[in-house]
Amino acid sequence: MRQVKGMEQPVLQIIGVLHGDIVSRDDAPKNYSESQRAGTLEIYPEYRDGLDGIVAGQTIVVLFWLHQASREVLKVYPRGDRSRGLRGVFATRSPIRPNPLAISELQVLAVDGCRIEVSGLDILDGTPIVDIKKTLSQ
Amino acid sequence: MRQVKGMEQPVLQIIGVLHGDIVSRDDAPKNYSESQRAGTLEIYPEYRDGLDGIVAGQTIVVLFWLHQASREVLKVYPRGDRSRGLRGVFATRSPIRPNPLAISELQVLAVDGCRIEVSGLDILDGTPIVDIKKTLSQ
Repeated sequence: MRQVKGMEQPVLQIIGVLHGDIVSRDDAPKNYSESQRAGTLEIYPEYRDGLDGIVAGQTIVVLFWLHQASREVLKVYPRGDRSRGLRGVFATRSPIRPNPLAISELQVLAVDGCRIEVSGLDILDGTPIVDIKKTLSQ
Repeated sequence: MRQVKGMEQPVLQIIGVLHGDIVSRDDAPKNYSESQRAGTLEIYPEYRDGLDGIVAGQTIVVLFWLHQASREVLKVYPRGDRSRGLRGVFATRSPIRPNPLAISELQVLAVDGCRIEVSGLDILDGTPIVDIKKTLSQ
């Protein structure tokens, strides 16, 4: 693994976990823009201060760590369609990639302390959350 | 730091580095949607296969690891404006956050092997790259 001079190897902090009803990849929408599935972002209490300002009605950008995805493969069939041939993972939205980070834009339905109800999910139940951001469009 | 049962602590692979002309935060645009600054994504040769399918004219989503940003602070003044009060980092685009990952949407100007010329940068020269994705709008 590459080391950047003078920099520690980046280790992610898990800030929370997704609770949802998608339990297998076959059941998952191909991406968030095709989903109305709802679920809950459970953020761990030590990160609660970071949520101040997130309110119902917003769209937020959520980064998930797809801990079940392969990190060793650099070419895939986009959306599983073999007719179009292999493509580099960086030219796709495949969960398979060296750092399996997923970006979702989710609608905030409600906020209750450390629990954020969202819709638009394409991510499996139990997936770790590593970041939340404001969208640029707001 | 939280551990997720049965999961290794996520360690990011650095897949490349940004070469650009933004060398200080004062000189950086506040975000990519306000920038026409150009630069080069140098992707390390061992990840080259993953670039197959990225071509000039596309927009790509690039994730950077902001290795100089603080990871300890959970509330900030958005865009440095103290008149609006403190806000949780997850309700902002601040580089300060537990996992300092930045998301940029960049225009691909040219691709030459492992070097991708891009415009739209708001990121400092020398920043590590951890992922590239297709935008959903293409």
